[in-house]
Amino acid sequence: MKLGIFDSGLGGLLIAKSIRNRMPDIDMIYLGDTLHVPYGSRSNEAIYDFCRRAVEFLFSKDCNLIVIACNTASASALRRLQQEYLPEHYSERRLLGVVVPTLEEAVEQGAKNIGLIGTNYIIQSNIYEDELQKIDPEIKIIQQATPLLVPLIEHEGTKWAQEVLNDYLEPLKKQSIESLILGCTHYPFLKSTIQDIVGPDITLLSQDEIIPGKLEEYFQRHPEISEPIGRNASAEFYVSDITDSYQAAANSIYGEAISIQKTEL
Amino acid sequence: MKLGIFDSGLGGLLIAKSIRNRMPDIDMIYLGDTLHVPYGSRSNEAIYDFCRRAVEFLFSKDCNLIVIACNTASASALRRLQQEYLPEHYSERRLLGVVVPTLEEAVEQGAKNIGLIGTNYIIQSNIYEDELQKIDPEIKIIQQATPLLVPLIEHEGTKWAQEVLNDYLEPLKKQSIESLILGCTHYPFLKSTIQDIVGPDITLLSQDEIIPGKLEEYFQRHPEISEPIGRNASAEFYVSDITDSYQAAANSIYGEAISIQKTEL
Repeated sequence: MKLGIFDSGLGGLLIAKSIRNRMPDIDMIYLGDTLHVPYGSRSNEAIYDFCRRAVEFLFSKDCNLIVIACNTASASALRRLQQEYLPEHYSERRLLGVVVPTLEEAVEQGAKNIGLIGTNYIIQSNIYEDELQKIDPEIKIIQQATPLLVPLIEHEGTKWAQEVLNDYLEPLKKQSIESLILGCTHYPFLKSTIQDIVGPDITLLSQDEIIPGKLEEYFQRHPEISEPIGRNASAEFYVSDITDSYQAAANSIYGEAISIQKTEL
Repeated sequence: MKLGIFDSGLGGLLIAKSIRNRMPDIDMIYLGDTLHVPYGSRSNEAIYDFCRRAVEFLFSKDCNLIVIACNTASASALRRLQQEYLPEHYSERRLLGVVVPTLEEAVEQGAKNIGLIGTNYIIQSNIYEDELQKIDPEIKIIQQATPLLVPLIEHEGTKWAQEVLNDYLEPLKKQSIESLILGCTHYPFLKSTIQDIVGPDITLLSQDEIIPGKLEEYFQRHPEISEPIGRNASAEFYVSDITDSYQAAANSIYGEAISIQKTEL
């Protein structure tokens, strides 16, 4: 069993780390497409093409299950890629996203009105509402694009985050949501600010907390692909462009110094 | 004479439009690398590679002079590309950037202390100070990275721009600068906010106002490449990725509806 984790950049390292903490006996390869980040404003075709190259890379490295940790990539390319790697033809090439597991968690917690914040792409794609319809059409989702949060996090702008978030979250606070999905790998960095604004009665759904458990459940349902390694498993990290800043950010997000290798994508 | 204008995205359309207004009898091709924008966080090697592909495209379209309108691209790749297209070997392949013309304008205006705002890349590259040293080592430049301005402009965040700019410009106001270079294609959109903050005694140096005149001077010095067209010259617009949002932004920045074509880069 080798797990691939793909993100458009480095934010997905937060999910990678929490998966690692929960399942330290699984070989893991992380790939961040730092040459093409951010995906959120690009065309569907461009995002699909980047994702296809990324999963091809991870499959070529013998990953048999890939988690697409990026919400934009999950929304844009996951279904199409899953069609291309149908389990009946590629039993060793499975792809999971983050949208459906996050919605499942929200529904399991009993929410009837779910809030969602995400990039422009995620909100315009309507992927969360479309997938929620399939799970339970009675449940409502109230969506809000929050495009400035990633730049504020990446460019030392968190001192303005409260003011910007007050503005963004105002419409959501007027609806009676029980939970709020943080629909971007970066948003957990603003968790406490967001919780302060929405108040303690609203449960924040943060993918770095949700995905490891959902992945474990997936392995329990699919014992054929999840043989334990039984030793200290490997962790490799690849990016498509490397700078000192990227290295520093990677160490910071993953929470320890990691060795990053560059690969062509 | 066919002029190429290259930018990492669509902000350079502001310079393209002001060049067009001043010299309507020159054929012009604009290329925005929307598939890879923004350049500012990427490695030198990645930026150089994107720029090389872009100028190859414009040369293949018979441009004999290319203006690299993007400050990051000018800082990272211009000198190296100029070395590859030396005039003695490629008399029809000339490359100009925006950094040196902007500094020349500041010096001609008599400034002794020049302020500069730009992306992280521009400030870290130290390109403006390095080039100013060659023009006049007595003149000082005081630099300030302002990485949140482009996201604020692109994501309807201008209502927070004043507060962010107050913070960014505070160190510059303490120095006695006479002029302030807006070192990014997007910053002219915040011209009035910036002018209000720095006060009326500081001259803003905006590249959409400077480059057309500098280009005209260049043509006067090089009459061999600047034969006038003598008819309503053509204007073509290419991008490496196209979406409805990009089309709308392009129309808005250029100030009229334009027909954009997609090309592989």
